[in-house]
Amino acid sequence: MSDAMKKAALQYHAEPIPGKLSVELTKPTETAKDLALAYSPGVAEPCREIAADPENAYLYTGKGNLVAVISDGTAILGLGNLGPLASKPVMEGKGVLFKRFAGINSVDVEIDAESPQAFIDTVRRIAITYGGINLEDIKAPECFEIEQALIEQCNIPVFHDDQHGTAIVTAAGMLNALDIAGKTLADARIVCLGAGAAAIACMKLLVASGAKVENIFMLDRKGVIHSGRDDLNQYKAMFATETELRTLDDAIDGADVFVGLSGPNLLKADQLKKMADKPVVFACSNPDPEIHPDIAREARPDVIMATGRSDYPNQVNNVLGFPFIFRGALDVRATRINEEMKLAAVHALKDLAREPVPQAVLDAYEIDSLEFGPGYIIPTPMDTRLLERLPAAVAQAAIDSGVARKPYPAHYPLTNTDQVYG
Amino acid sequence: MSDAMKKAALQYHAEPIPGKLSVELTKPTETAKDLALAYSPGVAEPCREIAADPENAYLYTGKGNLVAVISDGTAILGLGNLGPLASKPVMEGKGVLFKRFAGINSVDVEIDAESPQAFIDTVRRIAITYGGINLEDIKAPECFEIEQALIEQCNIPVFHDDQHGTAIVTAAGMLNALDIAGKTLADARIVCLGAGAAAIACMKLLVASGAKVENIFMLDRKGVIHSGRDDLNQYKAMFATETELRTLDDAIDGADVFVGLSGPNLLKADQLKKMADKPVVFACSNPDPEIHPDIAREARPDVIMATGRSDYPNQVNNVLGFPFIFRGALDVRATRINEEMKLAAVHALKDLAREPVPQAVLDAYEIDSLEFGPGYIIPTPMDTRLLERLPAAVAQAAIDSGVARKPYPAHYPLTNTDQVYG
Repeated sequence: MSDAMKKAALQYHAEPIPGKLSVELTKPTETAKDLALAYSPGVAEPCREIAADPENAYLYTGKGNLVAVISDGTAILGLGNLGPLASKPVMEGKGVLFKRFAGINSVDVEIDAESPQAFIDTVRRIAITYGGINLEDIKAPECFEIEQALIEQCNIPVFHDDQHGTAIVTAAGMLNALDIAGKTLADARIVCLGAGAAAIACMKLLVASGAKVENIFMLDRKGVIHSGRDDLNQYKAMFATETELRTLDDAIDGADVFVGLSGPNLLKADQLKKMADKPVVFACSNPDPEIHPDIAREARPDVIMATGRSDYPNQVNNVLGFPFIFRGALDVRATRINEEMKLAAVHALKDLAREPVPQAVLDAYEIDSLEFGPGYIIPTPMDTRLLERLPAAVAQAAIDSGVARKPYPAHYPLTNTDQVYG
Repeated sequence: MSDAMKKAALQYHAEPIPGKLSVELTKPTETAKDLALAYSPGVAEPCREIAADPENAYLYTGKGNLVAVISDGTAILGLGNLGPLASKPVMEGKGVLFKRFAGINSVDVEIDAESPQAFIDTVRRIAITYGGINLEDIKAPECFEIEQALIEQCNIPVFHDDQHGTAIVTAAGMLNALDIAGKTLADARIVCLGAGAAAIACMKLLVASGAKVENIFMLDRKGVIHSGRDDLNQYKAMFATETELRTLDDAIDGADVFVGLSGPNLLKADQLKKMADKPVVFACSNPDPEIHPDIAREARPDVIMATGRSDYPNQVNNVLGFPFIFRGALDVRATRINEEMKLAAVHALKDLAREPVPQAVLDAYEIDSLEFGPGYIIPTPMDTRLLERLPAAVAQAAIDSGVARKPYPAHYPLTNTDQVYG
């Protein structure tokens, strides 16, 4: 990030008022009579109705359109463990994106917890407040235990976006990339550099989408994760293969796919050169990818490449997922976000990239054309069709898989965020 | 509450969208460049600044103007223990009042806690998120333990409004009422019917304002709290007096002041008739007071009376306190709301009622005149001068008592809520 951008970012956050979000009133409060409805004595009536039937909280309060973005600040972006308070700008930023893209009210909660169990207990006790919970920037492997416990203990969607958001966008792009390369996920030999929360979730979702676990070679700091290692936690152990391969150099030879969720410049041009024909490279380390797109293109003109960067084609950006996934889940009052719903999001994203791009989207990016192919395998965040397609697909999957507690609302499919208030 | 009002209250909460609050964006988010500042990669910079100095959270996030309204739903209004979810309309309503009257962003948190300690642990762990914490509708005696623990464990203001908000408004009105009656708090013989959170806080604040504890006769369900009883918790025990009086009938005889924080119609006309000359009656049970104002006036034409009702003069309404007290505390970044700040609010409220009432306030209530006297001892909620006087007084007390961490902001005294963004 340039010094000018750093300065602009601080200014953006500080002026004219600190932060990025405010709480506003949606009902009249001008007169004493208004206030008698909003508060005492009128407010007693919805309280009684909710006491009689908890579902009434969705009718009389903001619960049904309210998502908590919750973190302990142990894995903030690429910054690491800076603690809960320092994560607040990210959590508020997530709230900005929830509102901007899907009309969801979002509040951040930073938790200063002494242990994963304390974190779990805290979230479980406050969960009743919200319609859904987005866990964020929690380090692995604690994040797996935390998410699993909360999914079991809460009857609202709990979704660790660093895992599943990244996995969903990656899987959508990957399916398109392999198709363009004339390959299939079932046959692809996949190297995954990184074994953190996002990496493990990505590989799990690729397996759920058709990849074979024996074709996946995951590497942590110590090298290839193989069945001979005795230092693996249960999450890494799922990807331990019987293999003689030990290093990235070993594993990359002849691989069809490289997924990087590790750190900058860890894939060398010489390694990329050893990959199979039409290699698919998702170099997602942010802001500096595992291999720079320009270097990759020079080493392998046939590469199909995605990164986390907005200034190159095919950005793997979580904002393509979480706002719309929660939108769909909330709208049918789903009790969780299950595998079926995640896969529905994958396929909706994948399919959208194959459709002609409307002029409005081209205008938003000031480009002349965008056509399905190596340079366009993932939809762009400014594509307003995301709101029409993803929530509807996710909601339908929730209904079909039996976790929805309410049918589609009348306004489906959505064409703008105002509809979520209708 | 009439059936028509009940219906109107439900409709108000349900239509056109559920609830009363939304989360809105305060910064531009139209372009991809805007979003790069609001979220990745720009957001990393304020994160780093906060990691370097936690105080920077007040510059770059919404923390400094964000109050959590937190409840376990064990003592909802006059409804009792309906549980945390059923309390949500009240907590959101409190958020409405925070914003409407003092420009404070407020989010509700309902806690489903298995014990007071679990509640304390939960709030302590999430406290870092907020600039202040308003505890609400938590039953006694647990509320005392909870508030005290959180005040000690958090370095932001923690304020149980059912206790202190009620106490502050009551004390302000009481000082004016006694003055009009030609009496003093130091000499007044006080009967307090009720021994819950609000009653104990009111009596404590009256003592801090000059009342003598030996002149206070507090009654719980079993009658007068006296030194011969062995069934008193430590909070009630503070008000155990050496006395032969046992019943309300005994205690009310010759009393100067009656404070009711108990239930409807518990003070009879015959009892009121036995009170001293120019009796001061604060019948605060809501919505039905301990004695109806019309009945009281008939029994004792010389009564100086306040209730919780908005349709009679002298409403003891917490909204006269909490928005402005938090406004003052937040604006000088006070670490707590101490006795000095509460007393500053009492005196600012008391003094304001003695000033001529502006035409705009009369217009808001569609009345011709309002003059300091038995029918006007407490300011009205629609009085915009509250925002000019109370925060400034509370902030000054915070500064003088050494709990402020920052001087007055440039916009003091406030004349409208927009200034809190300036």
